[in-house]
Amino acid sequence: ETTALAQDERWPLLLRIPVTTFGICMGLGSQTVLWKNLAQAHSMQWANIPVEISEGLWYFSAAVLFSLSLVYLLKAFLWTPYVRRESEHPVRTNFFFTPFIACLFLGIGLPPRFSHKPPYALFLVPMIPLTLLMIRRYGNWMTGSNERLSKVANPTSFLSIIPSFVGASLAVSCGWREPAVAFFAVGFTHWVVVFITLYQQLPSMTSLTDELHPVYFLFLAIPFQGSTTWRLIQGGVPDDFSKGLFWLGCFLYLILLSMARKFIGVKFSLAWWAYTFPMTAAGIASIGYANGVTTGFTQALAFALSIISSVAVVLILGMTILLTWQRKLFGNDVAI
Amino acid sequence: ETTALAQDERWPLLLRIPVTTFGICMGLGSQTVLWKNLAQAHSMQWANIPVEISEGLWYFSAAVLFSLSLVYLLKAFLWTPYVRRESEHPVRTNFFFTPFIACLFLGIGLPPRFSHKPPYALFLVPMIPLTLLMIRRYGNWMTGSNERLSKVANPTSFLSIIPSFVGASLAVSCGWREPAVAFFAVGFTHWVVVFITLYQQLPSMTSLTDELHPVYFLFLAIPFQGSTTWRLIQGGVPDDFSKGLFWLGCFLYLILLSMARKFIGVKFSLAWWAYTFPMTAAGIASIGYANGVTTGFTQALAFALSIISSVAVVLILGMTILLTWQRKLFGNDVAI
Amino acid sequence: ETTALAQDERWPLLLRIPVTTFGICMGLGSQTVLWKNLAQAHSMQWANIPVEISEGLWYFSAAVLFSLSLVYLLKAFLWTPYVRRESEHPVRTNFFFTPFIACLFLGIGLPPRFSHKPPYALFLVPMIPLTLLMIRRYGNWMTGSNERLSKVANPTSFLSIIPSFVGASLAVSCGWREPAVAFFAVGFTHWVVVFITLYQQLPSMTSLTDELHPVYFLFLAIPFQGSTTWRLIQGGVPDDFSKGLFWLGCFLYLILLSMARKFIGVKFSLAWWAYTFPMTAAGIASIGYANGVTTGFTQALAFALSIISSVAVVLILGMTILLTWQRKLFGNDVAI
Repeated sequence: ETTALAQDERWPLLLRIPVTTFGICMGLGSQTVLWKNLAQAHSMQWANIPVEISEGLWYFSAAVLFSLSLVYLLKAFLWTPYVRRESEHPVRTNFFFTPFIACLFLGIGLPPRFSHKPPYALFLVPMIPLTLLMIRRYGNWMTGSNERLSKVANPTSFLSIIPSFVGASLAVSCGWREPAVAFFAVGFTHWVVVFITLYQQLPSMTSLTDELHPVYFLFLAIPFQGSTTWRLIQGGVPDDFSKGLFWLGCFLYLILLSMARKFIGVKFSLAWWAYTFPMTAAGIASIGYANGVTTGFTQALAFALSIISSVAVVLILGMTILLTWQRKLFGNDVAI
Repeated sequence: ETTALAQDERWPLLLRIPVTTFGICMGLGSQTVLWKNLAQAHSMQWANIPVEISEGLWYFSAAVLFSLSLVYLLKAFLWTPYVRRESEHPVRTNFFFTPFIACLFLGIGLPPRFSHKPPYALFLVPMIPLTLLMIRRYGNWMTGSNERLSKVANPTSFLSIIPSFVGASLAVSCGWREPAVAFFAVGFTHWVVVFITLYQQLPSMTSLTDELHPVYFLFLAIPFQGSTTWRLIQGGVPDDFSKGLFWLGCFLYLILLSMARKFIGVKFSLAWWAYTFPMTAAGIASIGYANGVTTGFTQALAFALSIISSVAVVLILGMTILLTWQRKLFGNDVAI
Repeated sequence: ETTALAQDERWPLLLRIPVTTFGICMGLGSQTVLWKNLAQAHSMQWANIPVEISEGLWYFSAAVLFSLSLVYLLKAFLWTPYVRRESEHPVRTNFFFTPFIACLFLGIGLPPRFSHKPPYALFLVPMIPLTLLMIRRYGNWMTGSNERLSKVANPTSFLSIIPSFVGASLAVSCGWREPAVAFFAVGFTHWVVVFITLYQQLPSMTSLTDELHPVYFLFLAIPFQGSTTWRLIQGGVPDDFSKGLFWLGCFLYLILLSMARKFIGVKFSLAWWAYTFPMTAAGIASIGYANGVTTGFTQALAFALSIISSVAVVLILGMTILLTWQRKLFGNDVAI
């Protein structure tokens, strides 16, 4: 089926806002968590970061998420067939997890002045739709009915696995250890499946367009986020499993840096927001690692990884605002 | 080679008894273990289940296994080429593990009046042929000589991995911890291999016929059985690894329930027995979990999962007897 | 591009020395470590092995490694295009890790008279090029640019993963636990990827020539080496994870023995050295296991596995010297 809209004129605004826009909310939400960690972690006391930075980020992230959700709900209401087509696109489909993941980040990053222990509702409300989405997605993979993993797997598939880890982190914060173990187990299993499938580069897999190269950074997301989540489940101090995931993330980071050529020169698009969450997860994980192994080296590493991620978020946010202003970012959405 | 027998007349009885019939013994044997657990687990004391139920089931299972083994040995003796053809069929071949697994269940479910610690022989006698079968099977996978895993893998492949877990459980009951760790490690490794291969849905894999859809439930078998086995190896209390496997099983259970459409309307056949062992393993694992985390919720979950599995076994057993009586079940075995 | 050299006359000596020759150094280096373990492990005190055997082996291994490195450096200098072609060959490329792994063995096997704790330099000097090689290799797999794992994977791919484990062992000896955990995590992850890929026997993979069958033994290398490394990281006593890897190795050993037909009658070549390191790793791991579980059976197993590996090394070394003398071993290198 071809799109009914003319290719040569500007489409209505709503149609030009793809679901990938929620990547912004993941980047901002995880930064909120990072700066809360920077303010509270004992290994970062020397830096004297005020908790107000995280608080400010929290309000900003919440506002962006709220507005974008309203906009996208409106799109789903007015242009239902286009949203359905987005939900069937092998890359786009994974971004339907992102608004709920961003909710979870707001739960984890909740300013301490509201409550030191987030209320259970903040965990339950986003986890219910996420669990349903995961059941549907993994069920399709397992039976190969609609989507065979050996065909549709791509780095954005990690987005459908990240919720388990972020949700488990929030569950620990709420004081629910058993659900945290449950989601960690489910997430870890499916991460192994997708990680190995992507590494194999099966001939049946379709390769990414150049513009999507930044999503390779999603390879970092789960090792780092998993390291943090497992550390929290074990009471806050990294054990060998948490450390192993952290170092695996660092090694994959080095691999990606060694392939800088793949990333330099890629045209700016919303896909660049895929840089932000993985880099932020690296910062958060390194702070946790430095809490357990407090040396000058680990503290410097934690500080460096955190600052790099914040600089990346600021730059990408600036570019996004600038190009939106110049009407260059939200063009016709030819993918659907 | 085509079968020498006419397609339009009824074959001799022995030829119409496929190796899949031993699925009955796995269902009955695991129920014996379940009811022994229900009678003995401290988290189930409130239900006051008498140990005699398990005892009665034990005699019944032993009788069924003994009779079927005699029948199948006779078939192997009289119709050797047909049994060989069964042993080369990509689905049937995996069922050659089932009589020995059923033996292991009888060892684990041994009525306490005989002995509180099963004798080593009950572990060794079935594990020797099972280990030889596993060495042969995994060797074929590894070198790709006869059967490439990327081609022959299907959910019944799990049947060739389950023995390691059931055997390890029995080894712990006998007081042999080191062999238990050994078989757990071997089983777990090969489970990961097969699990990932099945999830990938490689284009080279042949898909299951509708009638075989119930074998998808074998996806549940190893997470639940593995959870129980690891808990026993660790002394009886579930640690995080055992809990994780349990919750993974529960999640896969939800996935399968969400695909109810695949299972409703499937014609009754011996393949339905594939429902019974995985559901029973879920019951056993949930009792163990409730032993470690004793709350009203976990106890209710354990009770529900156990009862569901028993109801399933009773219904499927009833259907099997009824349809055998009506001469509808053991038709000509066209698969071989 | 075809080789410029005539097929029917003898090529210059340097061109006839392939990079696989370094397999000799891995076999000798690991034997040095084995005999150091035999001399020092408390479970082997009954055998009264003098530490001088390991010392003698150390000098011999170091001399062989040094000479071969000089020779190969000369080849790389004089015949650069041929070495580059070797580095692009799907099997040969993995052997470029071997000289550095052999260095690591010399570090672990360092005679106690020099130092009880190897100096950090012995860890750092080989690990820097190895890490760069790994980053490049795994990066290529991940992005599928030059080499898709689903195409190039073969048992020699394990050679590109072994350095992490051997390096982690050496790091522990030096007293650096955190880098050991880091390399173990990286190695283990990539081992799982390659192990599963090989087990699947994807249709896209090219099969090994008969002459290369001995490299199937590399399947044993990482379970055994990983068992040892994890035991050392955990302080020297095998925990369940280390034991599990050990038993997995033993099971894979049985699988390979059951396929003796694949190995008997294979023409002698340098590929036979692929037998030596995995068998030696089995010996080392079994000594560590016997340290933790000291029974007559485990001690006998450790002794048997150690002696078998040493006999294999002696026989293969003898064959190598004899056939080199008869000018039968280093023929024209038609593979490149």
